[in-house]
Amino acid sequence: MAEPVIAVLAANSYGKADVHLLKVEREGDRHRVRDLTVTTVLSGDFEASYLDGDNSAVLPTDSQKNTVHAFAADPIGSVEEFGARLARHFAAAHPAVRSARVRVEERSWQRLPVEGLPAATAFADGGEAVQLAWATVADGRLTVACGLRGIKVLKTSGSEFHSFLTDRYTTLAPTRDRLLATEVGARWHCADGTSAWSKVRDAVLAHLLEAFAQTHSLAVQQTLFAMGRRVLAGVPEVESIDLRLPNIHHVPVDLTPFGLEPGNEVFTVFDRPYGVIEGSVRRGAPGAGAAGDADFPSDADSPNEESR
Amino acid sequence: MAEPVIAVLAANSYGKADVHLLKVEREGDRHRVRDLTVTTVLSGDFEASYLDGDNSAVLPTDSQKNTVHAFAADPIGSVEEFGARLARHFAAAHPAVRSARVRVEERSWQRLPVEGLPAATAFADGGEAVQLAWATVADGRLTVACGLRGIKVLKTSGSEFHSFLTDRYTTLAPTRDRLLATEVGARWHCADGTSAWSKVRDAVLAHLLEAFAQTHSLAVQQTLFAMGRRVLAGVPEVESIDLRLPNIHHVPVDLTPFGLEPGNEVFTVFDRPYGVIEGSVRRGAPGAGAAGDADFPSDADSPNEESR
Amino acid sequence: MAEPVIAVLAANSYGKADVHLLKVEREGDRHRVRDLTVTTVLSGDFEASYLDGDNSAVLPTDSQKNTVHAFAADPIGSVEEFGARLARHFAAAHPAVRSARVRVEERSWQRLPVEGLPAATAFADGGEAVQLAWATVADGRLTVACGLRGIKVLKTSGSEFHSFLTDRYTTLAPTRDRLLATEVGARWHCADGTSAWSKVRDAVLAHLLEAFAQTHSLAVQQTLFAMGRRVLAGVPEVESIDLRLPNIHHVPVDLTPFGLEPGNEVFTVFDRPYGVIEGSVRRGAPGAGAAGDADFPSDADSPNEESR
Amino acid sequence: MAEPVIAVLAANSYGKADVHLLKVEREGDRHRVRDLTVTTVLSGDFEASYLDGDNSAVLPTDSQKNTVHAFAADPIGSVEEFGARLARHFAAAHPAVRSARVRVEERSWQRLPVEGLPAATAFADGGEAVQLAWATVADGRLTVACGLRGIKVLKTSGSEFHSFLTDRYTTLAPTRDRLLATEVGARWHCADGTSAWSKVRDAVLAHLLEAFAQTHSLAVQQTLFAMGRRVLAGVPEVESIDLRLPNIHHVPVDLTPFGLEPGNEVFTVFDRPYGVIEGSVRRGAPGAGAAGDADFPSDADSPNEESR
Repeated sequence: MAEPVIAVLAANSYGKADVHLLKVEREGDRHRVRDLTVTTVLSGDFEASYLDGDNSAVLPTDSQKNTVHAFAADPIGSVEEFGARLARHFAAAHPAVRSARVRVEERSWQRLPVEGLPAATAFADGGEAVQLAWATVADGRLTVACGLRGIKVLKTSGSEFHSFLTDRYTTLAPTRDRLLATEVGARWHCADGTSAWSKVRDAVLAHLLEAFAQTHSLAVQQTLFAMGRRVLAGVPEVESIDLRLPNIHHVPVDLTPFGLEPGNEVFTVFDRPYGVIEGSVRRGAPGAGAAGDADFPSDADSPNEESR
Repeated sequence: MAEPVIAVLAANSYGKADVHLLKVEREGDRHRVRDLTVTTVLSGDFEASYLDGDNSAVLPTDSQKNTVHAFAADPIGSVEEFGARLARHFAAAHPAVRSARVRVEERSWQRLPVEGLPAATAFADGGEAVQLAWATVADGRLTVACGLRGIKVLKTSGSEFHSFLTDRYTTLAPTRDRLLATEVGARWHCADGTSAWSKVRDAVLAHLLEAFAQTHSLAVQQTLFAMGRRVLAGVPEVESIDLRLPNIHHVPVDLTPFGLEPGNEVFTVFDRPYGVIEGSVRRGAPGAGAAGDADFPSDADSPNEESR
Repeated sequence: MAEPVIAVLAANSYGKADVHLLKVEREGDRHRVRDLTVTTVLSGDFEASYLDGDNSAVLPTDSQKNTVHAFAADPIGSVEEFGARLARHFAAAHPAVRSARVRVEERSWQRLPVEGLPAATAFADGGEAVQLAWATVADGRLTVACGLRGIKVLKTSGSEFHSFLTDRYTTLAPTRDRLLATEVGARWHCADGTSAWSKVRDAVLAHLLEAFAQTHSLAVQQTLFAMGRRVLAGVPEVESIDLRLPNIHHVPVDLTPFGLEPGNEVFTVFDRPYGVIEGSVRRGAPGAGAAGDADFPSDADSPNEESR
Repeated sequence: MAEPVIAVLAANSYGKADVHLLKVEREGDRHRVRDLTVTTVLSGDFEASYLDGDNSAVLPTDSQKNTVHAFAADPIGSVEEFGARLARHFAAAHPAVRSARVRVEERSWQRLPVEGLPAATAFADGGEAVQLAWATVADGRLTVACGLRGIKVLKTSGSEFHSFLTDRYTTLAPTRDRLLATEVGARWHCADGTSAWSKVRDAVLAHLLEAFAQTHSLAVQQTLFAMGRRVLAGVPEVESIDLRLPNIHHVPVDLTPFGLEPGNEVFTVFDRPYGVIEGSVRRGAPGAGAAGDADFPSDADSPNEESR
């Protein structure tokens, strides 16, 4: 008996969306970073997969992602050149492909201009830094907290993490050279009588960035304290500062399966999960007692922050 | 008979979240813009409203929003100062308030550095400009489209909109002076053989910004065409350019209900709805036929764009 | 001398994106809500606006938005029918229009199934309710807080707001009949020894929804307390509950400029700003002292909530 | 000479945010899924790390993530129980921890009610399905496209992927049993004269879900075609349907490093990159020629879709 419904595949495409990678281009002590998000889409003679689940012509999207990683090990060039190389590869390498489309998106990072820094390996992105103030009048008394958020920074050298506690669940390898990336959230309180808030704000930001760039990091915690201490040392109006440094993980891609050197130049960027390190630094005598729990500035950014 | 459950109000607060406004500070031909988002929260003797719906002590959150608008008519000062003025006002003006908290957030805008511009009234925000490339190899042939998105710009003078078609549903008033804000999306194609893509990209961006700032706007459409034409005039490699200019509405707040001058300095920023103007500009002889429908660069930014 | 660059407009379109409205269809005591987001796009003979800023053929996008509002006053029908009516109107009404495109998006709301409710006018959307738990062990002691978020509800009758405090900045009109919409956030603590957490959670949600639907609201604050009290009355394990009820503003569209009845059926939905009402309800004797400041559950949802 | 600035660490905390996992609880042919996002935060005697970069007391956040994965291999229980177990573990296992806080968030999935399905292993989440219509009048003629998006579904059995093309860049292992998750986007066109759009819509959704659940999948492509064919077979009004099925990757966590069985129950959920499979299915005779490129419904969802 005839099949009453005749359905045909009128069009097809498949690929990998949003391969987010960071490439570090090292020229001696001077580094450059490329923050790329790549999408690949192939169309062509793939009917057998759609109709019968016959995948013999289907290059997995995972392999497409790997190809992006491997090609990133070579010099990137412009986004157009990188896209063109990938599109040409996919179109030429696999006979079923009739069209290969590659979309490349790049976000910019600028080198942090830090005085006297031996190596130019610290960066801030072109993103959106937001100024914050929380003013409260309670029982007739005014208090003002000041803040910043959205300051994305990374450094491509001068960051280690090792000699940590291990337990049954530890699989992380110690490292003497890792990429450190974070998005600084800060909140500070000034001494009573302060009114030059904008001047203080500029100084706080400058000291935070400089300390981030200059500190040879053994832990994000240590970088956090160094940043806070630098602010207290350099900005006399500031009494205390709370910092939040999410650890935005950048994991080197192992290129050896593709017959390449292992490399330490191409990194996968993970949105989540992410580590999050918080701490509060204030003026005072050392040994004044154990530190309390930091649950700010997350907490501090109430009210109503969570709803957006 | 006794009420078996005794419930008490242990804490209370209410307020208005995310009052987004733009303040234009005009010093002659030189303008400055302040992009503020304000949240107000009041706590105190508001039990009667919670327990009995008795609102006699409740200042509506709408009035709190209005207060933010009215206070923005005065000089803003720092975000701390603006927050402190508002917190002090709420705490002093209404006896039921025990604590008034105000959160102020500011995003930065920079003046566009345009040569020879008579008035400094055009701005770009500190946000994230993204470079884009779409490379396609189809049937053995490579085509590359180039793009930009995320370029937020606004101008505080030199924009009109009037003499438009009206119908039964038209309520918009014509204006000779409006704030014009948009986020530029662009996609262009270069002549065959082009390879200096990065140089072209820099030039395209510079011409887009310059044309936006210098064009006295009678319509967003006109600004769009002026921007596209400028790119074609200044960048010989570009064959055609598609532009998308959402019209991000900034509506002047009427301050007269508060006993203030009407003012043209405090604007409410609307996220949506928004107008969206698209067009494609290419080299060619005028009168070569009616223009087709623009449904790009929206369309162009496939594949997979919509899913994020 | 001839102009060396000849630029032509190859394509054009303009329209209004994301007109978000809610239509209440009342059939006596039984209401139905339609949550629509509409985008309109016109293409055609609009070159004069692009080339010369001549807007005589340009129907403002604001008028397009008004048209959507006015058409929503008639029965909506299916999303296809509503889109088709609008597209036909734009194409027929204005000679310059060659193509009119309308995109209609609808989110679903379901009627809340509340026992014994006289009028079927309370709704929950099909959205994502999220279960939350915060477990803390500090100094050897475990505490657990339980929560819910993402519960969107609205009611189309039984909500008033009037008799409130007014000051110089008050322009809000009192109302005896308003649409009340919120997204419930809740956090509660159970008595020591509680372990039937999932059973408690189900009961808390049921009581929250029922109290929202059944309470004739004179203030969001009053609804909040009624919801909290109902939970304490109905769920003996719960010792206290913190609630956060953002007031998602739905403002009736004035249709009289279009020659229609004023109407109370078509509402503009505002994303922001929004009111936000918080409170904490616990077991205890009335008059046990003034309530403290509520800055949770915003605060409670630390750590790290704000970063996403 | 004494250091003039004395800075102390006033508070500290660190942890892992947003560990997103899916647990499949298998009871024979009947499966249950738990979609959990966990954040861990530790505070205590961690000053040495902040002050000196001495990490000897610091359990890496990566180990905290691993712990969440390992604990998820045991029965989850309620979100409160899962959080409590983790908080107790962290507080007890590591002497420096003074407080351990764990936040657990769960999104719900419901079993798809498919008639005659032998195993109950297909699910839809409680999320937001959106109805779409695109109506166009061009040159006097109306066309209407209909759509759906936001339909999240997954199946925990009946999905394989193997026998695919491999190249130099392929590292993916073939699998006979994988978790398949997607978020269906669909757009269809009806025959001229169709007006029962809402009835068609309901039928299309029912057939899409049923075909997803019932199809033993050898490739997402095959599932896509099966879904499209089923719609054409079951809904005579539909002439063609375009489908977009992002492949939301769920990767089994290898538990063997923790001394556990490898397991196939705990999955890491990756937001991106993701595979994306598109195709268009229409009525017609087989062998009517090679399929074209699918670049919709991504493209179709213009205009203005990308801007939000």
